[in-house]
Amino acid sequence: MMDTLWLNEENDSLVIIDQTKLPNTLETLEITTPNALYDAIKTLAVRGAPAIGVSAAIGMYAIAKRFETTDITEFKARFSETSEYINSSRPTAVNLSWALERMKNVLKGCTTVDEARSSLKRECIAIRDEDIAVCRKIGENGASLITNGGVYITHCNAGRLAAVRYGTALAPFYVAQEQGKRFTVHADETRPLLQGARLTAYELSSAGIDTVVQCDNMVASLMSEKKINGIFVGCDRVARNGDAANKIGTHGLALIAKHFGVPFYVCAPYSTIDLNTKCGADIVIEHRDGDEIGEKWYNAKMTPNGVSYYNPAFDVTPHELITAFVTEKGVLTPRQL
Amino acid sequence: MMDTLWLNEENDSLVIIDQTKLPNTLETLEITTPNALYDAIKTLAVRGAPAIGVSAAIGMYAIAKRFETTDITEFKARFSETSEYINSSRPTAVNLSWALERMKNVLKGCTTVDEARSSLKRECIAIRDEDIAVCRKIGENGASLITNGGVYITHCNAGRLAAVRYGTALAPFYVAQEQGKRFTVHADETRPLLQGARLTAYELSSAGIDTVVQCDNMVASLMSEKKINGIFVGCDRVARNGDAANKIGTHGLALIAKHFGVPFYVCAPYSTIDLNTKCGADIVIEHRDGDEIGEKWYNAKMTPNGVSYYNPAFDVTPHELITAFVTEKGVLTPRQL
Repeated sequence: MMDTLWLNEENDSLVIIDQTKLPNTLETLEITTPNALYDAIKTLAVRGAPAIGVSAAIGMYAIAKRFETTDITEFKARFSETSEYINSSRPTAVNLSWALERMKNVLKGCTTVDEARSSLKRECIAIRDEDIAVCRKIGENGASLITNGGVYITHCNAGRLAAVRYGTALAPFYVAQEQGKRFTVHADETRPLLQGARLTAYELSSAGIDTVVQCDNMVASLMSEKKINGIFVGCDRVARNGDAANKIGTHGLALIAKHFGVPFYVCAPYSTIDLNTKCGADIVIEHRDGDEIGEKWYNAKMTPNGVSYYNPAFDVTPHELITAFVTEKGVLTPRQL
Repeated sequence: MMDTLWLNEENDSLVIIDQTKLPNTLETLEITTPNALYDAIKTLAVRGAPAIGVSAAIGMYAIAKRFETTDITEFKARFSETSEYINSSRPTAVNLSWALERMKNVLKGCTTVDEARSSLKRECIAIRDEDIAVCRKIGENGASLITNGGVYITHCNAGRLAAVRYGTALAPFYVAQEQGKRFTVHADETRPLLQGARLTAYELSSAGIDTVVQCDNMVASLMSEKKINGIFVGCDRVARNGDAANKIGTHGLALIAKHFGVPFYVCAPYSTIDLNTKCGADIVIEHRDGDEIGEKWYNAKMTPNGVSYYNPAFDVTPHELITAFVTEKGVLTPRQL
């Protein structure tokens, strides 16, 4: 299976799998302009906190490579300006601003445009390689939580399609499979954008893992009739106290898991912990257009005219509902973060 | 607004609003044959426990009116046989078997086919009229639980479209509105069949009630950020101990409501209590085809090939999560049933 995104070194462009087309069509997009990068993130052609971060890094290199200037001051100013624009594409994931900041920082010591371009290239490749290594390590640490014959639930897509390779919440499954374990993963379809049905089901079943798709509202029924060995989700931002923002529906899933005594694991790179955010209440939640609920995907509009919508893209799971965070540094309770 | 279903006395047929076409098209179906009645219930052209019961009663009258026999023994035998077939269309709602049983019972004393036909007609009209009266009374009893300026949640459609008129879970809103109260109702879209988005939103907004549509997985987020004054749902079967089967997702919603201290009301005719069922575990839950999750409504298949589905149509909410049952006899706690 190919990576989710990469740097095309032949023409210095960012290439991403267009995830709005999955699971029916596997198509890629080549990105070299600020508008194309902004749109790819905004429209979720690339999505998932780690993948957004790496795309922003490689994308900013591709864009800056094309700045028509030899003046380093102008180059840095344009980089800053473009970076701010890209940062406004989605507010919740910490990885976006973190990756953009890292790219901007390497420019500090540069005195020529050529030097700046080489530094940006080195840095975006480093960010990509670190993502792959960190996800692999999350998978290795999380695989110990997966038992042969176990049944698991995941929500949204925090798999390889949400990162460059392996993913976060699904990485433990891939490593456990390499270790010879066999198990079943129930994927919440994840309304309104169906990342579970379209993306998680696609990548798990492509990997030969036994995959069951269900609606988000079926988890209490499932947990009441069947032993579930654990729930693995990703996350977009973790506050200092361990409250974790993730795809809408995660909070409810965690409450239901708590009731049924099912372990609830949040898988994320350690960099997802945002020390500047004290607790969940301080995390800005993106609200998206109601058409995603009433019209998108459908043959006909599914709601009558004259209704309004409530469509937050994320919610915050309080730390007391989280059994542990699976990070590249190990499996840590919220207090150990 | 017209009734959801009625007896067309000109040609002795059952007429129903075809709910598979809402909210885009308001179309009716005329039913006079066993296959048409079976299909209308099976495909959810008519759905909702009370509406299914009344449709079965009027439909069986329309069908029996057309039995070509003057032999009362043969008439009764054919009635029984057809009745069993119709009863197999959906297993969970108690109202279906209850209405069919009532219709069969009136045949007992009949000695001629003419007498049988008149008795069936009287009985199906009585069942319909009782439904209207019971729903009205549920509305009156429940309206006292609704405050001016309040915000409420409902799941699936237990409104007028689930009955003949008024409905069960939505009846309190209609009566409260008549009393001059103004309030907001959040309708869960209710995957996979979208009864909330298509039907509840349609009937509430048509009635001029402030209506918000959300995905089922957004309720924990909503309850954590906003005061919700109560949740009103219908139900398909109540066991002797107060455990209640209702549309899939109700159990999870009740667990989340309990966590946030939001009152959880189950609205139903007293006849929904099935004394033959000891507790929730004894209720047969209908599982439906996975295509409803992966394909129905969509422009393209939303899941990859090779995955399986988990698609129960109902779940059981344990009585300890239910604040009260709103019935025509009053607002009763599970212990008072």
